[in-house]
Amino acid sequence: MNVGFIGLGIMGSRMAANLIRSGFRLRVHNRTQEKAHGLAAEWCESPANAARKADVLFTMLSTPEAVQETAFGERGFLPALVEDAVWVDSSTVHPSFSRHMAGECRKRGIHFLDAPVAGSKGPAETGDLVFLVGGDAAVVERCAPLFEAMGKAHRHFGANGAGTSIKMVVNLLLGHAMAGFAEGLALGESLGISRSTLLEVLLGAPVTAPFLQAKRSKVENDAYEADFPLQWMHKDLHLAALTAYEQGLALPGLQAVKEIFAMARRRGLGEKDFSAVCRLLQETRR
Amino acid sequence: MNVGFIGLGIMGSRMAANLIRSGFRLRVHNRTQEKAHGLAAEWCESPANAARKADVLFTMLSTPEAVQETAFGERGFLPALVEDAVWVDSSTVHPSFSRHMAGECRKRGIHFLDAPVAGSKGPAETGDLVFLVGGDAAVVERCAPLFEAMGKAHRHFGANGAGTSIKMVVNLLLGHAMAGFAEGLALGESLGISRSTLLEVLLGAPVTAPFLQAKRSKVENDAYEADFPLQWMHKDLHLAALTAYEQGLALPGLQAVKEIFAMARRRGLGEKDFSAVCRLLQETRR
Amino acid sequence: MNVGFIGLGIMGSRMAANLIRSGFRLRVHNRTQEKAHGLAAEWCESPANAARKADVLFTMLSTPEAVQETAFGERGFLPALVEDAVWVDSSTVHPSFSRHMAGECRKRGIHFLDAPVAGSKGPAETGDLVFLVGGDAAVVERCAPLFEAMGKAHRHFGANGAGTSIKMVVNLLLGHAMAGFAEGLALGESLGISRSTLLEVLLGAPVTAPFLQAKRSKVENDAYEADFPLQWMHKDLHLAALTAYEQGLALPGLQAVKEIFAMARRRGLGEKDFSAVCRLLQETRR
Amino acid sequence: MNVGFIGLGIMGSRMAANLIRSGFRLRVHNRTQEKAHGLAAEWCESPANAARKADVLFTMLSTPEAVQETAFGERGFLPALVEDAVWVDSSTVHPSFSRHMAGECRKRGIHFLDAPVAGSKGPAETGDLVFLVGGDAAVVERCAPLFEAMGKAHRHFGANGAGTSIKMVVNLLLGHAMAGFAEGLALGESLGISRSTLLEVLLGAPVTAPFLQAKRSKVENDAYEADFPLQWMHKDLHLAALTAYEQGLALPGLQAVKEIFAMARRRGLGEKDFSAVCRLLQETRR
Repeated sequence: MNVGFIGLGIMGSRMAANLIRSGFRLRVHNRTQEKAHGLAAEWCESPANAARKADVLFTMLSTPEAVQETAFGERGFLPALVEDAVWVDSSTVHPSFSRHMAGECRKRGIHFLDAPVAGSKGPAETGDLVFLVGGDAAVVERCAPLFEAMGKAHRHFGANGAGTSIKMVVNLLLGHAMAGFAEGLALGESLGISRSTLLEVLLGAPVTAPFLQAKRSKVENDAYEADFPLQWMHKDLHLAALTAYEQGLALPGLQAVKEIFAMARRRGLGEKDFSAVCRLLQETRR
Repeated sequence: MNVGFIGLGIMGSRMAANLIRSGFRLRVHNRTQEKAHGLAAEWCESPANAARKADVLFTMLSTPEAVQETAFGERGFLPALVEDAVWVDSSTVHPSFSRHMAGECRKRGIHFLDAPVAGSKGPAETGDLVFLVGGDAAVVERCAPLFEAMGKAHRHFGANGAGTSIKMVVNLLLGHAMAGFAEGLALGESLGISRSTLLEVLLGAPVTAPFLQAKRSKVENDAYEADFPLQWMHKDLHLAALTAYEQGLALPGLQAVKEIFAMARRRGLGEKDFSAVCRLLQETRR
Repeated sequence: MNVGFIGLGIMGSRMAANLIRSGFRLRVHNRTQEKAHGLAAEWCESPANAARKADVLFTMLSTPEAVQETAFGERGFLPALVEDAVWVDSSTVHPSFSRHMAGECRKRGIHFLDAPVAGSKGPAETGDLVFLVGGDAAVVERCAPLFEAMGKAHRHFGANGAGTSIKMVVNLLLGHAMAGFAEGLALGESLGISRSTLLEVLLGAPVTAPFLQAKRSKVENDAYEADFPLQWMHKDLHLAALTAYEQGLALPGLQAVKEIFAMARRRGLGEKDFSAVCRLLQETRR
Repeated sequence: MNVGFIGLGIMGSRMAANLIRSGFRLRVHNRTQEKAHGLAAEWCESPANAARKADVLFTMLSTPEAVQETAFGERGFLPALVEDAVWVDSSTVHPSFSRHMAGECRKRGIHFLDAPVAGSKGPAETGDLVFLVGGDAAVVERCAPLFEAMGKAHRHFGANGAGTSIKMVVNLLLGHAMAGFAEGLALGESLGISRSTLLEVLLGAPVTAPFLQAKRSKVENDAYEADFPLQWMHKDLHLAALTAYEQGLALPGLQAVKEIFAMARRRGLGEKDFSAVCRLLQETRR
């Protein structure tokens, strides 16, 4: 099976490495070539090149705009894919975008899966991602060995867009939980309870999401090296807000949480871990 | 030890029953007498009466205003407490109120503990509450047998107000998590993912607070019998917002979440469980 | 001068009529033909047809998506415009979209102006619109007679996108002011001040935007016939939120106001005037 | 007529001076004596002293807590007022507080008016305030000469609390309009429209509240000398939020606007004019 892989960032580089480790021959492309240096894969000068001979093409890009440009821009990959090939988009985008891409593929006789992942840097490295998949069952089946090389599970949630939908809900919950925790921490500390007491009482308790435990040392040390950069969480909440508009929903909590991340980004925290909202809400200048 | 107990609502009645079960002799008062009917305790016509001979007086009331009125109003309990008595307020109030009460007690030679509880109807019944306590260590020690009769643990967090502070942070997190979950559910369902799939995927996952699992059947059946009434959550978030103002904090997420509960209350859901915000966000009228 | 006009809704039909009244020969297109019935203009079966011979083509459409589809979709107008023609987009869109359209035109040797209007149904009818224009000064000059036929003024704010930018700020202020007024009214009435007293005291006062006076009878009679439909205000606030994201701004007030309009739309008020948020905030069901 | 006056801040000192100018003999008290130095009035060491012989006592204090303490604290004024005296509270408080004070007065045979003012430093100086009055018509009549000495009008809106209610609505609208304007300005500037163009286009236009014109030079020069300090606007929005809770209203716009002022205060802008939110939303640190 010929596999193409486009997008070698924090996530993509680790996922590609796991594919190689499992014996797949990869042809890869990235906006900047140096990200491909460590990989035992064939470098391709353009998205189109990476797609040319692929049975399955994976994309792991940062935004819908990046996917759009890489697919349809100059030397984009979509016209280069052969009929009956599969494009698996693991980028975190929004459901209407995934559905639109599915439609573009259908016109060209190409199969499409939306397959964003649950899990960040760590699980990408160890092959413990979970793929959240939307698309035809038979196509999912065909890609199963690839998912297995990169993740511990893949779940099929329905037609195209369903994978992206689940991922969007998951990230909305992550953002909400992180912002809520930051507010609770700020309130508690302002009332004289120490940060260490608050962390000890709250983390692992029924009222806090378990993923927050992994943020403990970052918060304790006020040192927010990025596992999941704040600016991508901000982007995901933006896409959720955009989707809520498309769906005719009012989600006022989401909007407020999104603006907390927007403020954090304005305060220079965009490339820190998204748990850095804990710093934002403490900040004062008198 | 003579124990007084004022406030026999959902929580107080169960806590008083556990004290009796442990062999304490109780003198009780409630705004309406019928709540005392099942209890093997001496009924007192007024707060003052319940306080008169008490070594320790517990109050479990709904709002700071109710505590204020019961303590200082006509036949209020505070003037009736004897010197060296202990007043333990387990009501969910705000820290500045607890500190103010502590000051009023100090003037009169009375000891004060703020000791709100973690846990709602179920743990109150089974004696599995956790008391979150602020006040003098020696006084906490004195009340330990009482806490043990009603709860599985009591934790001492510092001077007066510390117990109330922790409780406030816990309830802020509860409200945030509940509203966030409701928004995630609404978004997911609008995108065509079934409620049962969403509950199955999200509950118990790292992104959701564990307490949400106990809400599963309510959400599944859209039937929100109250364990913790929505109107009290709204009140607690109101007190948190008031406290944020006192502390000079900006907590925009809290404010948005509070208004979600306010809207739910306006839509007639105040006496339902606070998980009924899941219904609010689904609602449409065309 | 051959003039094309695409989009004959509430605004477009009145603007086209004013062009005809001033002696311009018009070739028009609309998604549904019946909107063109009253106009002394040549009907064109497709956007492309309306554009074919045009020296200047006006579009007055509801959303960026509608503009995109009408320009680039099947029988879209952009490929049909001749070199050196001018496309004037009076639709309310977002600045990055206007700039993108300008770029698409530039590639094809076509001139582009973004020229949304200040003023709704009444001024459209009486020719009292104000055009807020972005683009090359010479092109603005060329179109001046057309602007004068439909409006009382046109203002040139700079390069492409500047007209759309000003319009976006204006509509953000409209939405903020309307929602703020609705909240003030709800608060005042809840406190026992009559609606008529509130309207008398507040409208025309220094604290309220003058446009609100035109909403008086709607609010008094709780009858919100649309001058400017609520769903378009919601759309404009959505585009403002999207633009704030693109610009890296945090605008938490805008987000909250947007969700008020989202809720109103969910409650069935989308086709009412945007002042119908006054009804939303009064609503209770017990 | 013997007049007492308590509270000689920015507003009170100017109001007292106007009473003296109109020939009233004043006995005054303030927390710090130096504020009374310029006034031809009799200094009183305590609130009680200022109230002792008063036919009418005015209070102009900053918060409900300050009024409460001055009335009921040590050497407070309320017990010192004689029967049939009038207490006029011009402080900006919340309606339920005004009603509570009215009740306390009634018990003691004292008359009460809530009479906050529309207008800040300038109108206080020139006697152009407008008194917004709640209470008995006959009592309002009795105080008319005093209102006339300090203001250009007084309006009677109904029973006690009505004056405070109107004032609260007015300040909610002020806060909303100011925050909305600041957001519009931030959005416009981010899009490349100059501040001076935005001010020129927007101020005086139908979409902006007329009071904003008086903020022009502050915003132009980014120099926010206080006419109405931001921290008092924050307080007033806090009281409005508290009142919305009491009234069972959901006002999500108000909550978001309140937090904008909270953030501005945290950023050190509390003693600046409330128009300084225009600076907050521009601020970035990278």
